[in-house]
Amino acid sequence: MNPKHAEVEGRPCFPDVRVLPRPADLAILAVDKSRVPEVVRSCGEVGTRNLVIVTAGFKEAGKEGEEREEELRRLVRRYRLNLVGPNCMGIVSSAPSAPLNASFSRWFPKPGGIAFISQSGSLGETVLESFGEMGLGLSLFVNLGNRAGLSENDFLAHLEKDEASRIVFLYLESFADPVGFRRHVERISRTKPVVVLKSGRTQAGAAAVASHTGSLASADAVVDAFLDQCGAVRVTSIVELLRALRALERGALPRGRRVAILTNAGGAGIIAADACERSGIEVPRLPDPARAKLASFLPAEAGLRNPVDMIATAGADHYEAGLRVALSSVDAGIVIFRPPLVLAEAPEAVADAILRAARDVPGKPVLVSTTSRGPSVGPFVARLEAEKVPTYVMPEEAVDALAILVRIGELRDRPRLPQHRPSPDRGRLGGILAGAREEGRASLRFEEGAKVLAGYGIAVCPFAYPTVAEDAALAAAELGFPAVAKVDAPGLFHRFERGAIVTGIRTPEEARDAFQRLSALIEEEAWAGGRVLLQPCLTGRELILGMKRDPSFGPVLMFGVGGTLVEALRDVAFGVAPLSLDQAERMIRSIRAFPLLGAFRGLPPVDLSALARALVRLGNLALDLPLIEEVDLNPFIAGETSAAVDLLIKLQG
Amino acid sequence: MNPKHAEVEGRPCFPDVRVLPRPADLAILAVDKSRVPEVVRSCGEVGTRNLVIVTAGFKEAGKEGEEREEELRRLVRRYRLNLVGPNCMGIVSSAPSAPLNASFSRWFPKPGGIAFISQSGSLGETVLESFGEMGLGLSLFVNLGNRAGLSENDFLAHLEKDEASRIVFLYLESFADPVGFRRHVERISRTKPVVVLKSGRTQAGAAAVASHTGSLASADAVVDAFLDQCGAVRVTSIVELLRALRALERGALPRGRRVAILTNAGGAGIIAADACERSGIEVPRLPDPARAKLASFLPAEAGLRNPVDMIATAGADHYEAGLRVALSSVDAGIVIFRPPLVLAEAPEAVADAILRAARDVPGKPVLVSTTSRGPSVGPFVARLEAEKVPTYVMPEEAVDALAILVRIGELRDRPRLPQHRPSPDRGRLGGILAGAREEGRASLRFEEGAKVLAGYGIAVCPFAYPTVAEDAALAAAELGFPAVAKVDAPGLFHRFERGAIVTGIRTPEEARDAFQRLSALIEEEAWAGGRVLLQPCLTGRELILGMKRDPSFGPVLMFGVGGTLVEALRDVAFGVAPLSLDQAERMIRSIRAFPLLGAFRGLPPVDLSALARALVRLGNLALDLPLIEEVDLNPFIAGETSAAVDLLIKLQG
Repeated sequence: MNPKHAEVEGRPCFPDVRVLPRPADLAILAVDKSRVPEVVRSCGEVGTRNLVIVTAGFKEAGKEGEEREEELRRLVRRYRLNLVGPNCMGIVSSAPSAPLNASFSRWFPKPGGIAFISQSGSLGETVLESFGEMGLGLSLFVNLGNRAGLSENDFLAHLEKDEASRIVFLYLESFADPVGFRRHVERISRTKPVVVLKSGRTQAGAAAVASHTGSLASADAVVDAFLDQCGAVRVTSIVELLRALRALERGALPRGRRVAILTNAGGAGIIAADACERSGIEVPRLPDPARAKLASFLPAEAGLRNPVDMIATAGADHYEAGLRVALSSVDAGIVIFRPPLVLAEAPEAVADAILRAARDVPGKPVLVSTTSRGPSVGPFVARLEAEKVPTYVMPEEAVDALAILVRIGELRDRPRLPQHRPSPDRGRLGGILAGAREEGRASLRFEEGAKVLAGYGIAVCPFAYPTVAEDAALAAAELGFPAVAKVDAPGLFHRFERGAIVTGIRTPEEARDAFQRLSALIEEEAWAGGRVLLQPCLTGRELILGMKRDPSFGPVLMFGVGGTLVEALRDVAFGVAPLSLDQAERMIRSIRAFPLLGAFRGLPPVDLSALARALVRLGNLALDLPLIEEVDLNPFIAGETSAAVDLLIKLQG
Repeated sequence: MNPKHAEVEGRPCFPDVRVLPRPADLAILAVDKSRVPEVVRSCGEVGTRNLVIVTAGFKEAGKEGEEREEELRRLVRRYRLNLVGPNCMGIVSSAPSAPLNASFSRWFPKPGGIAFISQSGSLGETVLESFGEMGLGLSLFVNLGNRAGLSENDFLAHLEKDEASRIVFLYLESFADPVGFRRHVERISRTKPVVVLKSGRTQAGAAAVASHTGSLASADAVVDAFLDQCGAVRVTSIVELLRALRALERGALPRGRRVAILTNAGGAGIIAADACERSGIEVPRLPDPARAKLASFLPAEAGLRNPVDMIATAGADHYEAGLRVALSSVDAGIVIFRPPLVLAEAPEAVADAILRAARDVPGKPVLVSTTSRGPSVGPFVARLEAEKVPTYVMPEEAVDALAILVRIGELRDRPRLPQHRPSPDRGRLGGILAGAREEGRASLRFEEGAKVLAGYGIAVCPFAYPTVAEDAALAAAELGFPAVAKVDAPGLFHRFERGAIVTGIRTPEEARDAFQRLSALIEEEAWAGGRVLLQPCLTGRELILGMKRDPSFGPVLMFGVGGTLVEALRDVAFGVAPLSLDQAERMIRSIRAFPLLGAFRGLPPVDLSALARALVRLGNLALDLPLIEEVDLNPFIAGETSAAVDLLIKLQG
């Protein structure tokens, strides 16, 4: 369409969509920003529902642009448009049945199995250019732009069914809707690797939450946890991404973390082994029978442990036999072949030998390093790449790629999340929250909080509210010594600093004294609604369980070892609700202080599944009760029995 | 020399060095391994003292080879030879005054400022090949091989004075002599960056020490600490190394960690900012005046914070002015220029603009990313590289290189170590050790250990050895309550598990009881030489100070927070004696639990300089008294006063 021409490059040109003989399947808009709404409207009216808007000057361009985008969103809803953009580079599909290039990208990779969804246009081009250089094959490219219509989630819904797309890569600076994202990626990642480069750590940091528990939160750590829960592997750089995609194209995922390294260059083998250790990949000593087999054909100077150093004289036969032997006892192979000064065969013969051995173990990835990009390795690399055996220059690059394959293999095997079902009690429990809000309170009393937690099966330490000193003595005796007395008053948070807690109460008399002291304090400080709370002193490991509602992710759970450690060491784990038991247990295991939860200095080990259940339930509670802004169970004592000793439940403002 | 020819490639050929008209300055041996000793001997006899032995089949090739190498070492001593190798690729010098290629490397980089010492031949070739591709310039290349004569330390001694060598890079799998290495590198690194790729983490792990304190040691962490103390920066991969060398060639080192990012592609800027955050490089918001200046010439859509997103229309003028403004308030610049679809100027004009701005701030490195390696960036890159402004494809590569520049800048500014002077008391204190050894003991008694520590100014908690129960009551009262009683017996290490310690003694009576209980236990268990030791209970932070003699590095010091934390979290720091106060303090600050040593929950902050002094002194003690194998001060209490409460000093076996 262009009102100024009747023909463009030999094809007929129309002034307007309304004069077309029949509505177009797809309209690509590159008109001036001021004319976009009008053109979109006419598309909607004639029934052209698929649009790509290249034009910029919307949400990203100040107040006027924001208004223009708002108008666009209204048109999308009114005409039920499938809109990509605005402010985008467009889309490319290389499906042989319907090849389509609706973008202004300068690079068009060959067709292949990688679907690439990019929020950024320039980053999209950078990656597409690299695809071309590396020979990576594309199924679909989408530059989302401002996401006024379609978001990454709509394309994910398509990719789940799209057979041509075997690998999904997303570059995102933010999530359009994390809940939808999770639903799609949880499903897709069962059959297709999902790799995400999520940038914007710095910006994310700025949005970091600020409350006590929350102040420990790094928003980026939440993104890490979230992607892991979805079943996606996160990469942090373009270089890492490209290495990983090259390795993913072959489709082989290892079933474990054990690798054999075969090399004809000693130093490179050691560097590969070092890189494995850094990435948590094991380089196990090969079993004796394997070493005996290797010894039967390798020269005496060869190193038979792992790395297997076949020395510079190793030719095709050595590589083939060596790789067969080595792979038999591990999950993957790193092969280093540096063309030596003198070798009877052409390097291609070595490539063919590696291919023969690799083909026979399709479930065990083989990655190759040449330590060179010179002309002598060209045909060797070409031969391997033709069969999608990934090649890298430096050995540590092959190891980095393998680390991602290992990770994706592990993610694929994980149990998936059962669907969250709201609790039948949530109406009653929500009433407690609504009541507190009606009274103008921003947080629950201990007693109320205990009821809400108990409603979700989260144990709370027994407690009593004595009203006179004599009651306190009796109640303490009933709860058991040693006991603790503290002030429970709305809005009173840091009891220790305010002198509002008495610990180590060992006799009824001490309980009476504590009651009197705290009652006097309540009066003195004029803490409205303040009461004295008595509890037995629980013994066990001091932990922290927390929940904070994130504007984007919803309820974010936090776990850490309590006391001074969390604060000093920032040793906490995050998860996004809903959590599966498996995810909760992985959260618990992921903190550095996890060994402290095992049997330790006479203490029995913490009951991990009880602890995991508490985290799962805390997440469910937050999903069911949106009035809750934040929960802080600190300390949560895990001993013979596990229970929250103190609790803080803040309501939405 | 070759007995079979009279002429080789038009040059005269002699059968033997003995018939040469005058002795050769340098002999390169590529004869059969069996003939090497004989040829070396004749070189020595005629006075040819500089040798490169390419021939393999020595130490690396079994028992016979080891003997052959031993013979070679004897000849080196006898004839005072300067020998490189055997089993090496040779040496290359590109000094214009004396160019020399005495190697069989296939790659010869152009002359330049980088000296490269490699223990491995194949790795050496890999790196030299990359030098060629990247245009890095070489001053000297040495492949050390088996180091039967010259080691890395001899070449370091040369490099200190060699003006052509402005950057020193070593690839090492082991240190020939860490003490010598440290001496040289401490000096060189004041004026020349020293970059080390030390591989063999896995092998190093195998050699990890096994005693209680030692079991926490990862030998690789000791290498990290050691190189840092030397003033060398450690890289872990070839890729990282090459990125760093490219950036080092220009010679600009930043004076701080603050960087400005300038880009014409938003996504790449965010990825660079993320990479900075991961590397501990700050991307501060630019000050208001700088932002106002930027606003005066950049389009309205530009992002003025940091990264400065100058959008795709930015040309040479924008880059030059933008870089000048941005660099004025930071220590370094990352410039991203992705050639856009349409730009009025040639990319070279942008390169020249960047060069003009970079030239005016020679102390602030500027690193450039193109996000592309396509033909459109070729001339742009060439222009920058000609002035040694480093260019990278991806922005995160530029950031990784900058992180190394930052590190080298920091290392250069550190105070250097004062020389260690043996204590005048070491004879007397050594007598205590010798005495224990004569008695056949493998460790010192508490009393003896306390004397040795006191001799080096390391405080030990007061103690007494009561001989009867009544003494115990009196002694405890004098030391102060609460007190602790424990059994001191040679070879008794884990007192807690053996019931050989009584804590929380609050009265003379309890002290008497404890004495009787422990005396009975000594008798029951028949602990020869066992005595009851009384101490006051010190309050403060529980720390661990340790020393373990490493066969290669000598005394290795260890510091950690005591109790359960060290073991569970493996949160320890290492250092190699001698330590400077500055290094000791950096060790203390490097543990994750360091914040626990600040003012905390009512406890005053730990006196860091007293603690650092104790570590320095523990190192000096170990240097002076080689009979000591291991020291374990656990706990070392740091409170109002700092002192070792328990100690274990093991003697060399």
